[in-house]
Amino acid sequence: MQIALLLTGNEIMSGDTVDSNSAMIAQSLGPAGFTIGRKVTLADDFDALRDEISALSRDWPVLIVNGGLGPTVDDLTASALAEAASVAVCEHQDAATHVTQWCQRRGFEANAANMKQAQLPKGCSIVANPVGSAVGFSLTLNNCLIICTPGVPSELREMLGGEIKLLLQSSFTDVVACPPLRFKTFGIGESRLQQLVIDHLPNWPSEVELGFRAGAPLLEIKLAIADPVHEPLRAQCQQDLQQLIGNEIIGRDDCSLESIVVEQLKTQQLQLATAESCTGGQIAAAITSVAGASEVFQAGIVSYSNAIKSSLLGVSTQTLQTHGAVSQAVVLEMAQGALQAANANIAIAVSGVAGPGGGTAEKPVGTVWIAWGSHDTLHARQFHLPFGRKMFQTMVTAIGLDLVRRQLAGLPEDVAYYSQKRKPA
Amino acid sequence: MQIALLLTGNEIMSGDTVDSNSAMIAQSLGPAGFTIGRKVTLADDFDALRDEISALSRDWPVLIVNGGLGPTVDDLTASALAEAASVAVCEHQDAATHVTQWCQRRGFEANAANMKQAQLPKGCSIVANPVGSAVGFSLTLNNCLIICTPGVPSELREMLGGEIKLLLQSSFTDVVACPPLRFKTFGIGESRLQQLVIDHLPNWPSEVELGFRAGAPLLEIKLAIADPVHEPLRAQCQQDLQQLIGNEIIGRDDCSLESIVVEQLKTQQLQLATAESCTGGQIAAAITSVAGASEVFQAGIVSYSNAIKSSLLGVSTQTLQTHGAVSQAVVLEMAQGALQAANANIAIAVSGVAGPGGGTAEKPVGTVWIAWGSHDTLHARQFHLPFGRKMFQTMVTAIGLDLVRRQLAGLPEDVAYYSQKRKPA
Repeated sequence: MQIALLLTGNEIMSGDTVDSNSAMIAQSLGPAGFTIGRKVTLADDFDALRDEISALSRDWPVLIVNGGLGPTVDDLTASALAEAASVAVCEHQDAATHVTQWCQRRGFEANAANMKQAQLPKGCSIVANPVGSAVGFSLTLNNCLIICTPGVPSELREMLGGEIKLLLQSSFTDVVACPPLRFKTFGIGESRLQQLVIDHLPNWPSEVELGFRAGAPLLEIKLAIADPVHEPLRAQCQQDLQQLIGNEIIGRDDCSLESIVVEQLKTQQLQLATAESCTGGQIAAAITSVAGASEVFQAGIVSYSNAIKSSLLGVSTQTLQTHGAVSQAVVLEMAQGALQAANANIAIAVSGVAGPGGGTAEKPVGTVWIAWGSHDTLHARQFHLPFGRKMFQTMVTAIGLDLVRRQLAGLPEDVAYYSQKRKPA
Repeated sequence: MQIALLLTGNEIMSGDTVDSNSAMIAQSLGPAGFTIGRKVTLADDFDALRDEISALSRDWPVLIVNGGLGPTVDDLTASALAEAASVAVCEHQDAATHVTQWCQRRGFEANAANMKQAQLPKGCSIVANPVGSAVGFSLTLNNCLIICTPGVPSELREMLGGEIKLLLQSSFTDVVACPPLRFKTFGIGESRLQQLVIDHLPNWPSEVELGFRAGAPLLEIKLAIADPVHEPLRAQCQQDLQQLIGNEIIGRDDCSLESIVVEQLKTQQLQLATAESCTGGQIAAAITSVAGASEVFQAGIVSYSNAIKSSLLGVSTQTLQTHGAVSQAVVLEMAQGALQAANANIAIAVSGVAGPGGGTAEKPVGTVWIAWGSHDTLHARQFHLPFGRKMFQTMVTAIGLDLVRRQLAGLPEDVAYYSQKRKPA
């Protein structure tokens, strides 16, 4: 079923806030069978809001209004809906109780601004907000179910997955839920993946929609079907993709390279150590962003200068002088040093030229050496990643983690990734 | 002048892509005097697009259309605009040249899909795209200047600041540009800041609009005026704010805590070292994300386990046993160890309980000790930041950097930040 969405907020119109609520609403309700057919965004303007609510209610079976429920004079949703529905605004008993108790739990008495959030269109029903002070509410106008929701993302998230989904499902029992299948890949671009599918899976069924969401560094693949009856077709597509690009598939849903690597290390009872130059601690930070990382990670060393590469990681000054800091010999010694210093089984070591300064004709900005593996399986490879500084650091971190992922999974490690051939000098 | 915006794209409607283009358009054109008054977002649906273009062109002086310029069958903007304007679609000579040359520069011949991007509404003008293959184009319909732009953010950005702004300014010479004044703060929440302004600056002029953009960890303050004639009023407001919260103001526009600290260290010719436990390398990664950090940063140590705190940072095992890893004594020894290992002048050391596991009654999740300063000015303080794991790590990183910023600037360091009192056990 297609539904409409109305967003209100000066901060969204001015671009001071990037609207992530619409995407959250679409991703939460879409899998339940309610997709957004039209979205209108307006500033906090009473007349414009009232007229838009009227107009949308005449054309759509459901209208979600987001924003404008707060305690300030800019928050106009309740009064605009009331005028559109030709009803009065009055204090809603349950909403008043909610606001009063919410303030009490925080140790203060509700003031007039707080209580404004209980002034709702006469005849509406409450949509509980378990997190914030402003309740949501719903009203049927012109045969359209209008649901008003708060703009605070953490409150909206709670309500979408809970009461709002239930309200929609109980109001439209014939709508069929059909969540998409999502998995994350690394090491393959969107256009190359699309070409691979065209070349190798020419009989891809039209019932299974193949979608992509490009992120840095991962690419998400989505397989969507409109009707659960196509589930076997989708399972076949998933199997075909697994055969085609299985090595590049990291995992399902919200996984990340670091969460997968931490999981592998736990299962294999291994300890990881990092020795970072150009990524400056990002690899260690990625690993330790995963809850429970302390089981598999004891130490990381950010050796930004040559002196520190020698003093903390034991890289010989002769190796540094002969080959330079960005070299195969140095990253191999950095990795050995990290294994020893942290008493670990697996190491990642990186040294490169992040830029914008520091490049030479021989080692231009974007050059990086990565070493990875255990004492006995240590490898090193050079990549050329001529991106901006931050994207370079992001990609080196991801490639380092993916090389470890591949080694621990027994997959081929000779991947080109996004490395580009150097232009002839 | 208020203008309208029409976005098209299935990936935006499904929430697979968060629409950041609208914010980019608003932030680019707003300061030039063109603010968004109405925004409509639609899927790639020919009839809906054609009807919406017609409707918006009747009500608004300018309509920016974003998306739908690509080479695939989903890209419908040109044909929808043509039908709305009752003109034919035909090959535009300049657009065809652009596409052909764009492909040639990349070493391949333009195919039918590429050349589709030169099929434009008859009578339209080209808006050059210096980055991508799809040119933009403009057409006047119902007295409304319609400008069609590509959905690829990097292409849109180039065009907004260049040709599109020029086209708008030359078409509406009476619109006055008035860019907002922006600065970043840390250590003060939006609601507290608003209250401070109400209490201490009661005569705030209505001509100067005070806006906020909350980010993690920084809060941006925006001072906007509608007319350059109010510039002196704004300068006064800026001065008042500087007096009120000057210590919390980090800097102007796109600065960050790490960029300011790197700048201070450069100016004062100091070297920074980090010793991180619960932040796992994030402080080092923040510092080294700044270009030129190698001048002021040589080493960071991620000492995630007690053994490493001793072996790499020289924290005594007795201190660890007596006080535990999350303690004043340990972070002070970590900081001393980092100063010594890196031969640095200033250190940041952190040790805390990021959670979700690892908390105790005495040291619950969210507890952190931070030490900062030089050998002679080393301080340590405890904070209680009961956020989720990632937000906890973000806030500890920011507080560590801000404490150094304050020390180097000679500002008071006894800030409460966002630390909360522990609930009685």
